[in-house]
Amino acid sequence: MSGPAPARGPREAAASARVIGSTGRKRAGTVLEAEEIDGIVADYVAGHVPDYQMAAWLATVACRGLSTAELVALTRAYAAGGGQLDLSRVDGPVVDKHSTGGVGDTTTLIVVPVVAACGVPVAKMTGRALGFTGGTLDKLESIAGLRTTLPVEEIVPMLTSVGMVLTGQSADLTPGDGATYALRDVTGTVESIPLIAASIISKKVAVRADGLVLDVKTGAGALIQDRARAAELVRTMLGLAAEFGLSARAVLSDMSQPLGPAVGNALEIRQALAVLRGERIPGLWDLCAVVCRLMLQSVDPALTDEQARARIDRVLDDGSAYEMFVRWAVAQGADAAALEAERLPSAGRRLPVTAPESGWVTGIEPRSVGQASLMLGAGRLTYDAPLDHGAGVLLRHRVGDRVGKGDVLAELCYDSGDVARARALLESAFRIGDTAVVAPPAVHEVFAPDARPALVPGAA
Amino acid sequence: MSGPAPARGPREAAASARVIGSTGRKRAGTVLEAEEIDGIVADYVAGHVPDYQMAAWLATVACRGLSTAELVALTRAYAAGGGQLDLSRVDGPVVDKHSTGGVGDTTTLIVVPVVAACGVPVAKMTGRALGFTGGTLDKLESIAGLRTTLPVEEIVPMLTSVGMVLTGQSADLTPGDGATYALRDVTGTVESIPLIAASIISKKVAVRADGLVLDVKTGAGALIQDRARAAELVRTMLGLAAEFGLSARAVLSDMSQPLGPAVGNALEIRQALAVLRGERIPGLWDLCAVVCRLMLQSVDPALTDEQARARIDRVLDDGSAYEMFVRWAVAQGADAAALEAERLPSAGRRLPVTAPESGWVTGIEPRSVGQASLMLGAGRLTYDAPLDHGAGVLLRHRVGDRVGKGDVLAELCYDSGDVARARALLESAFRIGDTAVVAPPAVHEVFAPDARPALVPGAA
Repeated sequence: MSGPAPARGPREAAASARVIGSTGRKRAGTVLEAEEIDGIVADYVAGHVPDYQMAAWLATVACRGLSTAELVALTRAYAAGGGQLDLSRVDGPVVDKHSTGGVGDTTTLIVVPVVAACGVPVAKMTGRALGFTGGTLDKLESIAGLRTTLPVEEIVPMLTSVGMVLTGQSADLTPGDGATYALRDVTGTVESIPLIAASIISKKVAVRADGLVLDVKTGAGALIQDRARAAELVRTMLGLAAEFGLSARAVLSDMSQPLGPAVGNALEIRQALAVLRGERIPGLWDLCAVVCRLMLQSVDPALTDEQARARIDRVLDDGSAYEMFVRWAVAQGADAAALEAERLPSAGRRLPVTAPESGWVTGIEPRSVGQASLMLGAGRLTYDAPLDHGAGVLLRHRVGDRVGKGDVLAELCYDSGDVARARALLESAFRIGDTAVVAPPAVHEVFAPDARPALVPGAA
Repeated sequence: MSGPAPARGPREAAASARVIGSTGRKRAGTVLEAEEIDGIVADYVAGHVPDYQMAAWLATVACRGLSTAELVALTRAYAAGGGQLDLSRVDGPVVDKHSTGGVGDTTTLIVVPVVAACGVPVAKMTGRALGFTGGTLDKLESIAGLRTTLPVEEIVPMLTSVGMVLTGQSADLTPGDGATYALRDVTGTVESIPLIAASIISKKVAVRADGLVLDVKTGAGALIQDRARAAELVRTMLGLAAEFGLSARAVLSDMSQPLGPAVGNALEIRQALAVLRGERIPGLWDLCAVVCRLMLQSVDPALTDEQARARIDRVLDDGSAYEMFVRWAVAQGADAAALEAERLPSAGRRLPVTAPESGWVTGIEPRSVGQASLMLGAGRLTYDAPLDHGAGVLLRHRVGDRVGKGDVLAELCYDSGDVARARALLESAFRIGDTAVVAPPAVHEVFAPDARPALVPGAA
């Protein structure tokens, strides 16, 4: 037993007494006061409450849930005391997007330049990979010379001059979220709808873009696998965003298989650049097209679906979306030549995984694909492990494809790593059956700002 | 933020992964495996799991509850690795009792010698005061020369030669309970029925007496105030005791007012000695009589209520209960003269609290009385604070009494301490009304070993 240390002084004793009492009240069903929630988070950020007391409080909140008023208070508390990024200084509306993360999900690298090329500035804070899912910040590090993390004071000028910003957080915009997220991650309290919603929306409240699109994944590779619970997360976040006056739209998207064929940092950069050059990759582009449309509509609600699609097609077809990405990368320090395919990090070896029998691809388990990529060095087993930016997995087939025995299903791209384990994981990810299956749609549902779900035509 | 430290090695990482996963599964409604529960508690005791992870796990268990199989596993895990006290080496059956604690509750000091004088050996481990409730170990320290904590190896010889043992724990009989109790106490997870039940019954499993009586309090001064929840705790503990083959009976007793008139260490020793000399103090004796009967019946189920009462009355009336207490105290090191009233610690000053108006005593809030006693030095504000064994409160009236304006309701007995605050607390504890009320019974319900409640005749 490590044994809890005693309270250190009167201030700490008062803070501890509050969180202990709050834990008991919350468990008993009492609705907590906003001041109480605010004080507990502030005390924890200030170091007046020990980890074990905050862990018990968060675990209790994860079990009991939060009322709307409590959720608003927690979200506000998460963002309190953080450096505010004043996007109102940008002329015209600015849009933001968030994804709960998945495997082969390069959406951010595509939708940000597309929407920016449509004339709507996009400010997107990105993070690192966690577990088997990729992180945009890691992917961006594949580009030689690119400054992946801008100081806060450079963000607004960059948005004004270029039209887009993709950056890691240089300042702590949401100290309460940062502190509690780290604790939730090591105490089994990540998968809680109100805690996820408060964490995500607090970051959006801190940035205060004019428009916001939330991409929540569902399926085996998603943070929340169950579709009904994922939809509940969408509605919770939309309701919470509305409480803060944020104009948000959302999409419930499929993560029952990897979204795009590329899984790995530089592999995904190459794939995003291919899409920006006009290649509509199935699955990946299907989701990007919907997210781009919602981003445009989030700051221009009068824009019809048709009008939005036409604008998006134009910036892809005339090269301006690709040019936007290049202009942005150069503005953030990269040499334009660094974006050429042969200059991006590339693994020296490839190992194919083939179909053991003929049939239809009935499933590609995304976690196993993500883990295979991680085993090759594309992801982290510990927080500060270095990455191999060239490593990863390239999928050659999607669910619903007909394959013959011996056909290449996917390739491992690597220079080092645990190749045997990666291969076994990748082989185990594919399911081949003897009857045809219909591929799941990339987008299951689209949520309008009033939080009423609207089924996408053709969606399951 | 203090910030959780990273896992320290592969063993710790595996232990952390298990408790993190278990927290998530428990929150999601999964029934935990016995091996999983056992491993988590053992890892925590061994220091392989940090406090914040155990705190989140316990908080989640407190919210979600435990199935019978989980509860049995946790109880077993709490007792695992502890020094076993082998009471089977005592000839004939040995009986044990446990109380959830209250104000003015001197039951242990009375029932142990009474039952022992009836010829049934009683082994009772006692603890210190926590918060506003008294602890038997603190009370015993009022007796000069008494060894309050015996080594484990002296317990069986003492039981055999004297017939009773009252001692603090010298060895850690339930390391898992000890470690987690300390953590629960500082994380707001004390008031959980399964966690309380596992904690109490694990100690009984470690000792394995032949008979066991549980005294669970309900009312404003009880750990669990709500009567239905207190009854649920009784049924949970009786069911759990049965799973371990322990023959247990229980009483649900009243803590809506202090049990006896004396509140404070030496004051309660004096009061217990008065009862042992034959004084049937209302309330206190009413409960003691039922607990003594159940203790006798727990090792001799054929004994009728009438037969049990006759035996109890005899040992009180013929002085053998009092003699048992003296013989025991001397055997544990006290000089018999130390038990004389004038030799026990005594406060030098008394301050009466009087009735502000005529009427009936409609309530005596036990927490305030306990806090008043604590303010005079009879209890602890911090774990290692010294006690004033002579200090405390003497109540002159009980609920239901008719009082005149200016009548003495109670007295503060003190030498130092925060007398003004103690007086205010004691004054605020008494409620005087202008209509007669019936005093609540000392015993609300008696529970037979099959856990079906049997109403005590005359109980509310």
